[in-house]
Parts: sequence; C-alpha cells; structure tokens
Amino acid sequence: MQDNAQPAVTISAIASAAGVSIPTVSRVLNGRSDVAPATRERVEVLLREYGYRRRGAGRPTSSGLVDLVFNDLDSPWAVEIIRGVEELLNTEGLSMVVSAIHRRGGSGSTRKWLDTLGARPSDGAILVTTDLDSFLHAELQRLNLPLVVVDPAGVPDLEVPTVGATNWTGAVTATEHLLQHNHRRIGYVAGRPGLWCSRARLDGYRAGLDAAGIAFDAALVVGGDFDYASGFAAGIELLTLPDRPTAIFAASDQMALGVYEAARQQGLRIPDDLSVVGFDDLPEAGWASPPLTTVRQPLSEMGSLAARTLVRLIRGEAVESPRIELSTRLVQRASVRALHP
Amino acid sequence: MQDNAQPAVTISAIASAAGVSIPTVSRVLNGRSDVAPATRERVEVLLREYGYRRRGAGRPTSSGLVDLVFNDLDSPWAVEIIRGVEELLNTEGLSMVVSAIHRRGGSGSTRKWLDTLGARPSDGAILVTTDLDSFLHAELQRLNLPLVVVDPAGVPDLEVPTVGATNWTGAVTATEHLLQHNHRRIGYVAGRPGLWCSRARLDGYRAGLDAAGIAFDAALVVGGDFDYASGFAAGIELLTLPDRPTAIFAASDQMALGVYEAARQQGLRIPDDLSVVGFDDLPEAGWASPPLTTVRQPLSEMGSLAARTLVRLIRGEAVESPRIELSTRLVQRASVRALHP
Repeated sequence: MQDNAQPAVTISAIASAAGVSIPTVSRVLNGRSDVAPATRERVEVLLREYGYRRRGAGRPTSSGLVDLVFNDLDSPWAVEIIRGVEELLNTEGLSMVVSAIHRRGGSGSTRKWLDTLGARPSDGAILVTTDLDSFLHAELQRLNLPLVVVDPAGVPDLEVPTVGATNWTGAVTATEHLLQHNHRRIGYVAGRPGLWCSRARLDGYRAGLDAAGIAFDAALVVGGDFDYASGFAAGIELLTLPDRPTAIFAASDQMALGVYEAARQQGLRIPDDLSVVGFDDLPEAGWASPPLTTVRQPLSEMGSLAARTLVRLIRGEAVESPRIELSTRLVQRASVRALHP
Repeated sequence: MQDNAQPAVTISAIASAAGVSIPTVSRVLNGRSDVAPATRERVEVLLREYGYRRRGAGRPTSSGLVDLVFNDLDSPWAVEIIRGVEELLNTEGLSMVVSAIHRRGGSGSTRKWLDTLGARPSDGAILVTTDLDSFLHAELQRLNLPLVVVDPAGVPDLEVPTVGATNWTGAVTATEHLLQHNHRRIGYVAGRPGLWCSRARLDGYRAGLDAAGIAFDAALVVGGDFDYASGFAAGIELLTLPDRPTAIFAASDQMALGVYEAARQQGLRIPDDLSVVGFDDLPEAGWASPPLTTVRQPLSEMGSLAARTLVRLIRGEAVESPRIELSTRLVQRASVRALHP
C-alpha cells in the first residue's frame, strides 16, 4: 500500500502465535460474533502487541473512499445496489469508487484490477458477487481491507459480514400465491445452476407445493440461467408440454419476461391463458405488459445495509451478525389470474 | 483542496490581465478549439506566468481518481454510462468515483455533495445531466477540475467538452422506418418539455413526415415525460382517438413500454394492430413482448468517449471539438408491421 506504512506482520503470524487458525483471526478482524470470547481476547491482545494494523480500521476519514466492486457491470440490478450504497455513503460524507473486475477478461484483468485497487487509498470494500472465487477472496484478504459482501446469491460461510435476501421464503411466497389462485400445475424456471440462491428458490417452490399436498412433477421444472434468453427457451418448453402448466414461476424477472414472449409466440395471453410470477422486482417488472407480479428483493436496501455495516467495521465497531438476510415480499401486479376452484 | 497547495490565482485575474472574458479563459483551460490562436497564446502565457495550476492537469496519476456525477441514480440508462466510463478508466489504471447530487434534497444536498468532492483529490469529473443548472456549473468551475459533460439531452453551448447523440437524425430514421412500412397516421409521444433532446426528436419526427409529403397533424402528438406512466397515458389518449394511428413513435423506450400496456388494455396486439418504435435501446427494449424496435443511443460508448476526452484534458492535450455527437441507429426487432400500400 502506498498511502501509509504497512507493518510486515501477517495474519498467519498472529494465528500461529495465538495457536488458532487463520480464519479465526480473520473472524476477529471482521468483527464477527462467532468467536469464543477468550479466543477473541487472546487474538486481539496479539494484534495489538504485534502492532498489526489494517488499512482504514479506526480511521474513518483516512481516505474518504469506499470501494464497491462488481464482477461485471452488466447486471440489471447493479444500479439498484449502486444507488443504495451511494445514498448511505453520501450521508456519511464518504465517496464511492465503483469498479468491475471484468473477469471475462481472464485472470490478467483480475490482477490489473487488484493492482489499481492496491495503488491508492481505500477505507474498505463492498463486494457484490454471485460467485466469489477463492483466489479473489484470498487476494482481498491480503489487501487487509475491511470487507462486506452483498450477496444476492446466498453463499454461506463467508469469513466476512454478508448481506443477502430470503431466497427460500420468497419462493415459498410466490408458490403459495399461485396456489391460492387455484393453480395446481405450476411450472418452474430455475436459476443458474450451482448458485445457492438457485437452490434456495427451487427448494422454496418445492416446499410450497408440498405444504399444499401437491406432488412435485419434475417435468414442470426447467433449467435457466437467470437471463431473458433462457427464460424464453424454458417458456417454450413448458408451454408445448402435452399438459401445459396454467402458471409459471420464474426465478428471475428477466426469465419471466422471456416466458412472456414465449407465451405470446404460442398465442397465449397473460394472465388470461397463463399466469406468471417473477423474482427480483427490477424496474422492468413494472414496465412489462401486463405488469409483472414478482417477489421483491430489496436490492438498494441491501446496498445501504452493506455500506452501514462496512462503516461500522471501518470504525472498529463490532457487527452483530455475520450474515443478515433482508426479507423479500410479493408485489402483486397484473400477471396472475384466479382459476375456478 | 487538501491534496496539494493551490495557488491563489483565479481565472478572473487571468481574464482581467489578458483583457478577455472569463469564459474565454475557461475555453482555453478546457482545450476548446473555438478560441482565436493569438488569444489562446496570450492566455496560456499568462496562465504560466501567474503560476495558475488546475488540479489534475498534466498530472494524470496525481490521485488516480475520476468523478462520474449524476443528478440522481434512478435513471435506467445510468448503468449503461457507468459501464462505458468504467471500462475506459480501467484500461488507464484510473478509478471511478460515482456520486449523485441528490438535488431532490434541495440546495443543501448539492452543497454537501460539493463539500465531499472538494475535500478529497480528484483528477477530473464527468457530469451526466439532462439539465445542468448554472449554479452547479459555476461551482464546478470554481473547483478547477477538468470537466466533460455527457449530455443525452443535448444542451448546446456549454463551456466544456460535451458528448451527445444525434437526437434529430435518430427521430428522422424512426419516422422513415414507419413510413417505409406504409404507415401514414403515425402518433408521436414527446419527451419531457423544455429539454433540447425532446425538441430535437420532435423536429426529427416532423422532418420525416414532411420529407414524405405528409401533413403534420397536431392531434397525433401527445406530451410525455420520458417515463412509463406518461407513455401509458399518452398511449391511451392516442388509441382512443376516433381515427387512431396505426403506429406510434415514442421518444423513449420507457414511454414505448407504456404504449404497449395501453394497447393491451385497449385489446390491441402489437404489431398486428399497432406498430411501435421507441428511442434509447435500453436492455428492456429487447426484453419486451414483442421485442421493441427502437433507435439506439450508444450510451456506454458515450461514457467511454467522455472518459477518453477527460483523460486528454487531464494530460493537458487539446480536444478536437467542443461537442461530439455519436450517431444513433435503428435496431429492428418485432414491434413494426408493414401495412398494405
């Protein structure tokens, strides 16, 4: 780091001296509460004795800059999170540096991004990710920055404070809404494979059906990738089944809009011939025709909470919980019709 | 400014010594070419003699930070511009500070934003605006930052380099496209009143009709505000006319999506019963059902060009033109149908 003299003391030296693991030292540094009090005290004493100092900690206005980091800036929900983070930082008189890792450019671009970050002051970073890889995570730890993850994908067990949303509960709510409107054959368009949020939403859909005593039918579940094209393809697949569903729940708004187009091409009107529910509540959901009923993820609130949490870490205050999930809620618009019971 | 010693020399002192106006000194500082060579030389000599130094100029990596400033971050095209600016700055090893002036909070919030900006280093700023007010403009000049404006609205005659798009030509193209498909009654949903881009697009629509020998019919032009709700209201108004239009050109994609919903509520299908063309080519245009034919504004390219221009200013290089308009182009999707001639 160029902005201040950085002692050579490493986290691993502290861990070794304290007789604990490196992740345990990280937990203490990250203000997590899941460390035994005696262990925490021993680590904190050693951190002080060794003169370990992280950048930013306890010096809230050292640079006045906080980093907000995306994998890529092409996500439609990026601007929602940007707005939430900016609003909170603005009230604290802090400035927000937005960057994208551009991992599509390969590991060289990640390296370049880390170099740029390391070459200037920063008080801390908020990372927005759907799949935090271990290389990047280790590099960020090495920079010694206070770190908070906004994690719509729901990766569990990160070593840093995390803000997410209630993916499972949201999917239960959407499924129950369709059941209450007497739908029994409910198609499901799943999210990107391998992500925790995709798993949680699928499980929520299954739990909703199960609670209503409806058998799970694998033929009604089609894989997607969160984007419009995969929603369209899944919609065509579901709507050309011999016994097609009367309703489709898609694990993202973009996929739900793809289902809209699939329905149109099949000559089906929404909601008369097909009910649709999405997930996210991007602005686009309200601009669809008909306006889309969807599960709202409070993305800008998640951004604000992440920023507030980071400011606490920067000030050396403890953080109550290593993971906070903000609640989702159903936003009813005009894409669901009640069937006769 | 806290990051370096700032001389007390002001632009007005230079102007007075050179016997020119303050705007002329600004033009020289902003690298504009519309200053007589002799005047430019006289001003430049005085700037050197007086030891006038703007922040950042000639010191490309002095802080490594460039500011990107929005009125508010709720515009759907904000993320497009953010992406374009970030990509260019990333290749230059510079970081992007994104902020919103939050003018809805009144002049106090503008003041607070200026204080935050003034309290930390910055090499220059890109301002994205639909209506740059004179107070803000003056304050930014006072901060002595190299400045470029990304200006989708098309404000002419700013003292700083400006990047815009060909609003008038884009509207001509959209109108011609509908005329080529044999539409003769073409409704128009206008943009926010008082903005230059709204005026340019309306004039383009009129010019397109005029070139085809079709009389302008004021009943077919309805005011809008660029947003979904105003597009919906205008759509209802146009589609309930006794002799309703066969096509509607809306001055923004969001308004075009509002027209979609108005058509649906009137029992009209797109494109069978009504053709629609938008303006912007936001990602939402491709996700509409049917996908929307629209005039593409190259927002992310505008952001990249603004960043490249700013980097040149920061390095003290001249800028070729005070205003650059990137060309719009028609993106054909599925919302326009040919009528029988």
